[in-house]
Amino acid sequence: MVVNQQKPYVIGLDLGGTNSVFGIVDQRGEIKVTTAIKTQGHKTVEDYVKASVEALQPIIDHVGGIEYIKAMGIGAPNANFYKGTIEYAPNLAWAHDCIVPLAEMFSKELGIPVALTNDANAAAIGEMTYGVARGMKNFIMLTLGTGVGSGVVVNGQLVYGCDGFAGELGHVIMRRENGRSCGCGRRGCLEAYCSATGVARTAREMLETTDRPSLLRELKPEDITSLEVSIAAGKGDELAKEVYEFTGNMLGEACADFTAFSSPEAFVFFGGMAKAGDLIMEPIKRSYDKNVLPIFKGKAQFLISSLDGASAAVLGASAIGWDI
Amino acid sequence: MVVNQQKPYVIGLDLGGTNSVFGIVDQRGEIKVTTAIKTQGHKTVEDYVKASVEALQPIIDHVGGIEYIKAMGIGAPNANFYKGTIEYAPNLAWAHDCIVPLAEMFSKELGIPVALTNDANAAAIGEMTYGVARGMKNFIMLTLGTGVGSGVVVNGQLVYGCDGFAGELGHVIMRRENGRSCGCGRRGCLEAYCSATGVARTAREMLETTDRPSLLRELKPEDITSLEVSIAAGKGDELAKEVYEFTGNMLGEACADFTAFSSPEAFVFFGGMAKAGDLIMEPIKRSYDKNVLPIFKGKAQFLISSLDGASAAVLGASAIGWDI
Repeated sequence: MVVNQQKPYVIGLDLGGTNSVFGIVDQRGEIKVTTAIKTQGHKTVEDYVKASVEALQPIIDHVGGIEYIKAMGIGAPNANFYKGTIEYAPNLAWAHDCIVPLAEMFSKELGIPVALTNDANAAAIGEMTYGVARGMKNFIMLTLGTGVGSGVVVNGQLVYGCDGFAGELGHVIMRRENGRSCGCGRRGCLEAYCSATGVARTAREMLETTDRPSLLRELKPEDITSLEVSIAAGKGDELAKEVYEFTGNMLGEACADFTAFSSPEAFVFFGGMAKAGDLIMEPIKRSYDKNVLPIFKGKAQFLISSLDGASAAVLGASAIGWDI
Repeated sequence: MVVNQQKPYVIGLDLGGTNSVFGIVDQRGEIKVTTAIKTQGHKTVEDYVKASVEALQPIIDHVGGIEYIKAMGIGAPNANFYKGTIEYAPNLAWAHDCIVPLAEMFSKELGIPVALTNDANAAAIGEMTYGVARGMKNFIMLTLGTGVGSGVVVNGQLVYGCDGFAGELGHVIMRRENGRSCGCGRRGCLEAYCSATGVARTAREMLETTDRPSLLRELKPEDITSLEVSIAAGKGDELAKEVYEFTGNMLGEACADFTAFSSPEAFVFFGGMAKAGDLIMEPIKRSYDKNVLPIFKGKAQFLISSLDGASAAVLGASAIGWDI
């Protein structure tokens, strides 16, 4: 991380399907000031960038003006780091059927360098720059949210691969026979089981296929979420505990395979599911120890992100600004 | 690759369970002269190094003396690149129950820098330095021999991980239910199916569990090898062809998962099995296209090593010498 003393800040943009949250961040990862706009409701990407720059102006002025800002980093879905583009993002009206050169557009408007990467990669860089992975050269970040995202760091660098899209560990196949259908159109992906939606699905399946008692039976099946399952487990509900046991077991199996690839010094977990703490981390560690190749045993740490959930995405996005 | 004009050669040592083959190699990957000793039959590692240096002396003199040699690279089993050690190698009498600082020992005797890596990693570096992966920054090398070895290159660097042992792709789990037992003590590993011994095992299983006709029935089960299976397939034997179809299908599934990790521009296949050519490569490609996440489709090439089998291991070992 090279920090320019003359330019002590970077802008981070967490570009989500609903909201776009901007923050101006200093070298220690402190968010000095934030603002936000709706991501949708703009006819074109030009309108979106214009609305963004208008919202940014007051917070840029607040820290002394654009001359104090080194660069901008964007975390966004379907982002191509190499090209600075968003490509065919199904959830973004102004980018769902085209390739949008978003980094270049912001750079032109603001007059500073802009880089863009996907949200899970941004989270990994954020963790390496400001969080529990500070100083680590080899680690894997897994974000357990609506989906399962990942960012892989090897030799201190994020792995982007030949096309900028590497690190899709949510889509390795964990069940080749009768695997669950996944949003990607295939079957048996890690994400179909170990995302927050996967956990709710596991709970519903267990409730449907058995008549075991459970606090979760008080809810309508469609109201069951991973949070409800963790609350029930916290109250000692056996079925709910088994859902987390199943999920952690599969994550441990997956991590054991990932270790055969890059032998990381740590796995860092982030996202709603990671908040379940030991409930998910204990079965992950147990399963990992059981499944990993003997020479790797005991080498990797299992950590929960230390970044504050609300600001982590903005911090992660901002972190890529330091390295441009 | 930084080449010192004053020192135009490197020494490569392919340290195998039976033979230790030395070669002196120039910058274009031409082996100028070779020699060999038996790996076994030395009481201690000191005796092994002494015998090696004695065998090396005449070929070093042949190229003009040690002052023309930049460094030495060693490809060996159970090698730790970071430490320059061989650790608990089951097939090496002088290193099976201890950690041997082999790089340091050779360096002291010869007065040049020495680096050491495992054979599959050496093959990947050899391919990147002299072979079909020349100029590539992201590729995965799979060696299909007695086992399945691998070397992963990301951002132009070999992936060693936190401990020097990364890239054990032969030991990702491909069958979690009723998987075949593997030499590593676990079940369902890629290596248990897609190594040369795995192919022979698949053939024997198909012969035992069906009464389908096959040329392979003329052999004793224990005499069936992957080579015999490829010869039978070449003659149109349906069962033998199905063995390769099954093997290629699983390799394609595995490569699809590897792509989710590092999105390589190519997979390079090396070793006895790769010599089966289209017989193995066609089902690999077909299965890969069927299994890979849509965004990666059509991006990776599937290549067979261009290095001559007999000298590839020495070349690969020598290649790590240029970068010390």
